[in-house]
Amino acid sequence: MYNFIFKNPTKLIFGKGTIASLTTEIPDGKRVMMTYGGGSIKNNGVYDQVKAALHNYSIIEFSGIEPNPTYETLMQAVALAKEQNIDYFLAVGGGSVIDGTKFIVTAMLYDGDPWEFMIDPSKAKHALPFATVLTLPATGSEMNNGSVISKKTTHEKLAFMNPETYPQFSILDPEVTYSLPKRQLANGVVDAYVHVMEQYLTFSSDSMIQDRFAEGILSTLTEIGEKVVNGQPEYDLRANFMLSATMALNGFISMGVPQDWATHMIGHELTALYGLDHAVTLAIVQPSLLRVMRNEKREKLLQYADRVWHLTQGSEEGRIEAAIQKTEAFYRNLGIKTKLSEHGIDNKSFDSIAERFAIRGWKLGEKQSITPELIREILNGCLA
Amino acid sequence: MYNFIFKNPTKLIFGKGTIASLTTEIPDGKRVMMTYGGGSIKNNGVYDQVKAALHNYSIIEFSGIEPNPTYETLMQAVALAKEQNIDYFLAVGGGSVIDGTKFIVTAMLYDGDPWEFMIDPSKAKHALPFATVLTLPATGSEMNNGSVISKKTTHEKLAFMNPETYPQFSILDPEVTYSLPKRQLANGVVDAYVHVMEQYLTFSSDSMIQDRFAEGILSTLTEIGEKVVNGQPEYDLRANFMLSATMALNGFISMGVPQDWATHMIGHELTALYGLDHAVTLAIVQPSLLRVMRNEKREKLLQYADRVWHLTQGSEEGRIEAAIQKTEAFYRNLGIKTKLSEHGIDNKSFDSIAERFAIRGWKLGEKQSITPELIREILNGCLA
Repeated sequence: MYNFIFKNPTKLIFGKGTIASLTTEIPDGKRVMMTYGGGSIKNNGVYDQVKAALHNYSIIEFSGIEPNPTYETLMQAVALAKEQNIDYFLAVGGGSVIDGTKFIVTAMLYDGDPWEFMIDPSKAKHALPFATVLTLPATGSEMNNGSVISKKTTHEKLAFMNPETYPQFSILDPEVTYSLPKRQLANGVVDAYVHVMEQYLTFSSDSMIQDRFAEGILSTLTEIGEKVVNGQPEYDLRANFMLSATMALNGFISMGVPQDWATHMIGHELTALYGLDHAVTLAIVQPSLLRVMRNEKREKLLQYADRVWHLTQGSEEGRIEAAIQKTEAFYRNLGIKTKLSEHGIDNKSFDSIAERFAIRGWKLGEKQSITPELIREILNGCLA
Repeated sequence: MYNFIFKNPTKLIFGKGTIASLTTEIPDGKRVMMTYGGGSIKNNGVYDQVKAALHNYSIIEFSGIEPNPTYETLMQAVALAKEQNIDYFLAVGGGSVIDGTKFIVTAMLYDGDPWEFMIDPSKAKHALPFATVLTLPATGSEMNNGSVISKKTTHEKLAFMNPETYPQFSILDPEVTYSLPKRQLANGVVDAYVHVMEQYLTFSSDSMIQDRFAEGILSTLTEIGEKVVNGQPEYDLRANFMLSATMALNGFISMGVPQDWATHMIGHELTALYGLDHAVTLAIVQPSLLRVMRNEKREKLLQYADRVWHLTQGSEEGRIEAAIQKTEAFYRNLGIKTKLSEHGIDNKSFDSIAERFAIRGWKLGEKQSITPELIREILNGCLA
């Protein structure tokens, strides 16, 4: 096990009816900016619940934060918040709204063009306080300090972390997921699943507890995923799904372990170029990546095959391939198309994607061994 | 899943060589009281490492905090700390030293006789800041806000929690466990195991993630327990053991689940009356409690038999009994005597123990269904 430091100060407020607790959780006298997306919260009752709970606060709304939130949109929120002397933010939405709000609260205290801290995240050090009401279980952003932001003008999608962008608190009411469309539920399940895999499916570091926790989340998602996506809303299914997504990326399973994240890095390029949903890119890239990197990941792939998919018979190669196939089938059963050709995408951009990583000098994967050549090989495996 | 609130602000600093980070973690200018136990830290190098890291601070030492720390001893520390204007505490030791320090930091700000907040823990609201250097993995006290204190004059042993008694940070260096005697290692494994069981082996609340996490800790402890206790020190074994004990009682596995704690409550009485090690009382009481309460706990006992002990064949009663026997055998293989008769204790005190619970009006167990009569039945099952 590697040495590590763990600290996660976010207060998790979980369960039905908990949005009302906003009334007591936001400090008195704050000027609050409420950030949200395209307005679905106005149709599912969340907007009304939040406004009712915050009737004693002075509130400015900023809506229109898009999926894959953009620098361009968020800078409008920064300008408005400065003009209105906002000193507390409440993100009401999914990962995009929360990620976008992390950018806003950091930009509020940043001296210079905020895109600078996207290029060099070590410059992101301070932030105004914020909290969240989660409406879409997926990214885990409600209980971590990470954020992914896109820039329209350059088709870039970059991530940053800031020690001060942990939400002060996050409210997770599983009932708010009842109105989510199937596509968003499926994306959420895949997103959570791949988050766990990025921290688990690497090489052994003798981190037995973290492996067991990771396998616990994976097993839960394989057990409930299809029911959540294809079935009628049931409270306990949604609660377990919602908690899975949070636990997948709140630091609990990453203590002292190597991490991969190459599937995410390659996937971000596909979103930036083609506008594919984030989770869809993960479901496309990951099976191919696991095949290409199977020798480096052999020990963990076999453990994954055994403990998550109960594959204990046959050759090592056979069990590994079966585990990858079961993983892909799991995504497909949620309604996700896992091949680029199914999205009408061919290999034309592969060279330029590989070239981007070469120019940035980024080496991907838990051993920094995924070269631009291997990225091209992984992408070729995503075609059909 | 029940509604829940989770927040754990303790910073965990984990790994070899991390005691040196004390230098930067304690705020400058603090007057620090260093609390410890019987002096074993002077023989294993921990005392020297701590003193070296703190050479820039003004430090007052308070040693002699005993196993099952007593009100009488701790009040001496409170008097000394007040006299010396101490404003930060560093507990260097195991659960007893840390629990004792939680009492001290609460008593420092309590107006009245501190035993009052032991009788009525809702009175424990404030505390001075403190941190820990853990030397004995067992109680989980390094990452929670709970504490158990004994009073010599009345042979009482009571627990309290205070929102402000989470350690600011805890340093966990697995190498400091290398010098621990076998008995303390065995106690630590049992303590961590039973902590998990108290939060897991109840009734189903559809908390799939928490069940998996709990089973992950139990599986890890059954896999490494004997090697940790009976083998030579190995870093990764000790690291996994140390992390297991912390994860067993830091709130990660208790989100939204029913909890039992009857084994602890009954065990505390045995420690108070006979001076048995805390963990030994747990290993004695728990198998009998699981047998007596097996109908209420049936569903979870079967899940435990399956997922932790891989018992899937035979009748339900047979699997349940086999799982309990395997649990007890696990404790015995660590060198723990699991029957009262092996400790020279007969049934003479059983009536007065049951009477104590009756007088306090406490109903034990996850359904508050363990009456004084059932406590007597459980104790009878502990005899031989």
